[in-house]
Amino acid sequence: MTRFSELETPAVLIDLDRVEANLGKAQAFADQAGLKLRPHIKTHKLPRFARRQVELGAVGITVQKLGEAEVMADAGLDDLLLTFNIIGPAKLRRLAALHARVTIRVVADSAECVAGLAAAFTDPARPLGVFVECDTGMGRCGVQSPQAALALARDIRAAPGLAFAGLMTYPAAGKYREAAAWLAAAKALFDAEGIAVPDITTGGTPDIWHADEAGVATEYRPGTYIYMDRSQVAAGAARYEDCALTVLATVVSRPTDSRAIIDAGSKTLTSDLLGLEGYGHVLDFPEARIVGLSEEHGTLDVSACPVKPGIGDTIRIVPNHCCPVSNLFDRVTLIRDGEVVETVPVAARGRVD
Amino acid sequence: MTRFSELETPAVLIDLDRVEANLGKAQAFADQAGLKLRPHIKTHKLPRFARRQVELGAVGITVQKLGEAEVMADAGLDDLLLTFNIIGPAKLRRLAALHARVTIRVVADSAECVAGLAAAFTDPARPLGVFVECDTGMGRCGVQSPQAALALARDIRAAPGLAFAGLMTYPAAGKYREAAAWLAAAKALFDAEGIAVPDITTGGTPDIWHADEAGVATEYRPGTYIYMDRSQVAAGAARYEDCALTVLATVVSRPTDSRAIIDAGSKTLTSDLLGLEGYGHVLDFPEARIVGLSEEHGTLDVSACPVKPGIGDTIRIVPNHCCPVSNLFDRVTLIRDGEVVETVPVAARGRVD
Repeated sequence: MTRFSELETPAVLIDLDRVEANLGKAQAFADQAGLKLRPHIKTHKLPRFARRQVELGAVGITVQKLGEAEVMADAGLDDLLLTFNIIGPAKLRRLAALHARVTIRVVADSAECVAGLAAAFTDPARPLGVFVECDTGMGRCGVQSPQAALALARDIRAAPGLAFAGLMTYPAAGKYREAAAWLAAAKALFDAEGIAVPDITTGGTPDIWHADEAGVATEYRPGTYIYMDRSQVAAGAARYEDCALTVLATVVSRPTDSRAIIDAGSKTLTSDLLGLEGYGHVLDFPEARIVGLSEEHGTLDVSACPVKPGIGDTIRIVPNHCCPVSNLFDRVTLIRDGEVVETVPVAARGRVD
Repeated sequence: MTRFSELETPAVLIDLDRVEANLGKAQAFADQAGLKLRPHIKTHKLPRFARRQVELGAVGITVQKLGEAEVMADAGLDDLLLTFNIIGPAKLRRLAALHARVTIRVVADSAECVAGLAAAFTDPARPLGVFVECDTGMGRCGVQSPQAALALARDIRAAPGLAFAGLMTYPAAGKYREAAAWLAAAKALFDAEGIAVPDITTGGTPDIWHADEAGVATEYRPGTYIYMDRSQVAAGAARYEDCALTVLATVVSRPTDSRAIIDAGSKTLTSDLLGLEGYGHVLDFPEARIVGLSEEHGTLDVSACPVKPGIGDTIRIVPNHCCPVSNLFDRVTLIRDGEVVETVPVAARGRVD
């Protein structure tokens, strides 16, 4: 048996019991709310956890890139929602290859995007499911009004090889009520036109425990909930005791009484602040503040710590944002009760396209 | 022949002519200043460019992690400076294995670090070279005074298997004069004690064109200079025409007249701001501002663009910070005159430990 503290650092530790608790709690909540769950695998990028999510009741998975879809399809996942506009011939060919072997649906938010899909998918016997992406407040992709959603749905329905799958949104954190109102207005418009909306899918871990207030939504796509992180604690969606992903780092320098330097910088923790102060929460020294990151160094202000970490000490950090941390590591270490269970490759990391 | 614009996006493009110009200019400047050049390979993480740097006159290379050193040693690079404190038995074993096959020297900034090295390296016939790292204003690792540098050098000299290699610093950007004064004071102290200082090594691309003002320094370790980036343009160390690394991205959505969404987010450009506004410089649409990044989406404000990019258009971005971009891509594409020369694996990416 190896204790995690014996690992070389920096290392990413995944607590399996916390993963299981987080997955189970969200599935139960979705079941209670009458929502299908379609977890986003961008957080873990691991086929084993995608399979576990489906075993526990998820209807399928969400992916953000064709490369992620390819890894997950290879691993046996067969119901995928790709929540990204697919543009251009090379990507349309890859999408077609996926469509030929698994159920994969995509989104679109423009006539140009639908036209590309319509040209690439022409078989009415096996249409490609396409959701209309709706900007319900995030200010990213998405049509800007329920009327525009209806117009784009008509384009999709007019294409013989496409099937209108419904409405998709990624709401701004904390704006689930606005998103629900937007979707309800759109649904009413579609109803008035007599156009069926097979699914209405929304998501986001920050508001996951408000999923029961998602109104007309039929499906929820949380990602971060499997691991949770400091930003989710700040959003009130988790406690530190729920955080399953931690970064193990070593104190490599104590240049001054107030400063400690660790071997985890932005190449480990990322520079993501997500509106927070500092770059992570130090579990073992909660008074420590991670005040700066270089690529390979983290700078801690330990002046408030009653006992200060020494050179060679290992510390565990809950990162601000766990998803990009998964992307930075070729391997993560699964632990249970502090013991190393297995070190596994992050199969879908680095799938940039 | 393939034009880069035919590549799937996002992609990292490396302009070989600009690389060659940047390498040649820095080597000539160092030669003129009478400084040895020891480039930091963290920027490119590519053995071919490390070899080219040595061919052009570099005395060896700098690495930040044992994993980077291992990749470079495997590729035939045989004179390495590892500018990171090596702490703990596992890492000391890896360092010993490297020391057995190449010339590798390290740094230390504490008695604890030196004690670890002294216990692991005991052969006076093949001592390990150890620099004292000096904090000349960066506020990261390093001893805090010339007197502390002298004391630590005495510890190193007292260990039979270690050899005092000199002083090493990474100055704060723009603080090269303070660093030079610090090092001069230290050198005077060592001289007064009759202790030879074989090398004094400093670095940093932001102040590379002030390397001739580095005073007592004998060696310079720039990293970013091979590619340059938006932060170096802001620092006055480069022009956009010098930037060899660009990110090729596709416009995937135009939800509003002022907003464009590209398929490059923080998983491509990183969240590094380095004190700048926005997340990169758009070459083709210089009035566009990259105002936000999600992992896979970049949000551009294109309201100031006289001609606005359309869905499906590709754009090229000079990132704020090129080094972590290299780390995010398994492969980069080498180009010359806009034509694809070769796509190569980033051999030393993801070497976190």
